[in-house]
Amino acid sequence: MPVGTQASIKGLTPRDVEREVDPPIILANTYHLFLRPGHEVVRELGGLHQFMQWPRAILTDSGGFQVFSLSELRKVREEGVEFQSHLNGDRHLFTPESTVDVQLALGSDILMVLDECTEYPATYERARSSMELTSRWARRAFAHYRGPRAEFEQQRALFPIVQGGMYQDLRRASAEALLELDAYGYAIGGLSVGEPRDESLAMTEVVAPMLPQGKPRYVMGIGLPEELPEYVARGVDMMDCVMPSRNARNGCLFTSTGRVIIKNARYRADAGPLDAECGCYTCQNFTRAYLRHLFVSQEILFSTLATIHNLRFYLDTMRAMRRSILDGRFPQYLAGVRVRANDGEKL
Amino acid sequence: MPVGTQASIKGLTPRDVEREVDPPIILANTYHLFLRPGHEVVRELGGLHQFMQWPRAILTDSGGFQVFSLSELRKVREEGVEFQSHLNGDRHLFTPESTVDVQLALGSDILMVLDECTEYPATYERARSSMELTSRWARRAFAHYRGPRAEFEQQRALFPIVQGGMYQDLRRASAEALLELDAYGYAIGGLSVGEPRDESLAMTEVVAPMLPQGKPRYVMGIGLPEELPEYVARGVDMMDCVMPSRNARNGCLFTSTGRVIIKNARYRADAGPLDAECGCYTCQNFTRAYLRHLFVSQEILFSTLATIHNLRFYLDTMRAMRRSILDGRFPQYLAGVRVRANDGEKL
Repeated sequence: MPVGTQASIKGLTPRDVEREVDPPIILANTYHLFLRPGHEVVRELGGLHQFMQWPRAILTDSGGFQVFSLSELRKVREEGVEFQSHLNGDRHLFTPESTVDVQLALGSDILMVLDECTEYPATYERARSSMELTSRWARRAFAHYRGPRAEFEQQRALFPIVQGGMYQDLRRASAEALLELDAYGYAIGGLSVGEPRDESLAMTEVVAPMLPQGKPRYVMGIGLPEELPEYVARGVDMMDCVMPSRNARNGCLFTSTGRVIIKNARYRADAGPLDAECGCYTCQNFTRAYLRHLFVSQEILFSTLATIHNLRFYLDTMRAMRRSILDGRFPQYLAGVRVRANDGEKL
Repeated sequence: MPVGTQASIKGLTPRDVEREVDPPIILANTYHLFLRPGHEVVRELGGLHQFMQWPRAILTDSGGFQVFSLSELRKVREEGVEFQSHLNGDRHLFTPESTVDVQLALGSDILMVLDECTEYPATYERARSSMELTSRWARRAFAHYRGPRAEFEQQRALFPIVQGGMYQDLRRASAEALLELDAYGYAIGGLSVGEPRDESLAMTEVVAPMLPQGKPRYVMGIGLPEELPEYVARGVDMMDCVMPSRNARNGCLFTSTGRVIIKNARYRADAGPLDAECGCYTCQNFTRAYLRHLFVSQEILFSTLATIHNLRFYLDTMRAMRRSILDGRFPQYLAGVRVRANDGEKL
């Protein structure tokens, strides 16, 4: 899922997102939209799809992760999390119930429950109590969603989030508790918070097989291009990450022959396309030399062209995996990715 | 002419420039492209059209204006102008001959002669000697263009630039001297340098009728939307200005019902289009509330959507004038613009 934090995939018109990237779903951030322009304004204007002119599906996170990463003076208690806006210092309270209501006002297709994203590293005791709080919050979110807000359940999905730090038994306990909710889909959270990559994969390996096979499994905040197949191999269906778009703006481009740091002098007069195997607008029309010129000259167009390409590269990677699964070739696909990764080739 | 200073209309893909703005010609800046990426690099990559993927006409200025406005330690002498790069302090010399060669390397369709853009205010003596230097430089540029570079004259046009400060007789003398060159088109320069608007119009009124009726007359660096018809009324065919694109990025939008300062709180939940009479992508798809949200949130997409609209508004204004001229209704069109301007309504 490309990330559209503030109701915009940075640098791209929704028309270009559809045509060039073609993702079935994008992600937007509840925390940001709650603060600005405000979920009630978005509701008044017909919801997020109408507001940002995105006709396909939208997933919104619960705001929990941003409260922990962006806001100061946050205070977690049983009721919810109190925090100060990073924009103007205003105090707010997110509860499991209120974040469901905010996401319903936004009109998301997939809502996420409020969770506490356990920091890394965390002691066993800390990870356990944090995970248990997340489970209690999930039950409250579902009770609210299926009680007072039951009219919405036919149209939208609410996903709970598995936590438990880097402890296998806590991850299992979290998954078991959440399975009782019989949700349409499940997320694995609390990864990509600074832990070594093999830890993130190990936690996924413990949790994913416990989650229902016929329902979407979503690992939050993942990952590098060469990591995507590892998660898919472990049964993951959905991922999101700011990396393709943020790296694009910083001049780090992912291609079929490896990473391109576009500011390098070697691209100064390079008449070739960014990625000869890519069909995106950027690769079909512009040279590496032009992209380097735009980057060095700090032209806005660089962000647009680079983001088009990086997001297309991610989505093409996902589409290639899907085809290989349907064709029964995924094991070979994965083996190829691993050989190249072991050769030190970074995709 | 939309301005593409560094081989990019800021914030727009060339595809969107063609489809949404539809200008027959754009402007690029010789000074900037000479410094970065360098005209030889652009030539090597197939010229500016290929480099930036712009299939229609390109006009490049001579670099003279930017030398005077951007670079430090410039030194004008008979041979040309010596200056330091505003990027890294390197010393360079522009001569009337070298700037023709740079523009030929870029592959421009319309080249401009090196001129000295006389500052405002300037004494009569200063304006006279500056104007005479510009005339001598123009003769040298044409001698070079028609001598060693004669092969190009069938494919490209070189325009001289009328100077003379705010003195009618100097403007006339400048035009007379340049008419001897029998150019394909003529520019009026040295306006929009800080003088009152009626001075710029007065100078245009003196010069334009002296220039050949069947050839393009180009006033450089003009102007506000309500000014365009005043120049057209005085016989001007071509103009360029950073105003529509720069103002767009700063949140000042030109519409058929007046200027919109998009950050104003009144647009916070405004579900209407930016300009109900406009057919551009921005106005056809997005609300003022969404545009305000993007501006306040400093999203890149704001620059794109705002620039699409402002440039479309300018080009639609030019197209409306052309139609009214062809239909014999231009006097009524102009009268309407003036009535609205006198009513204090700023377009």
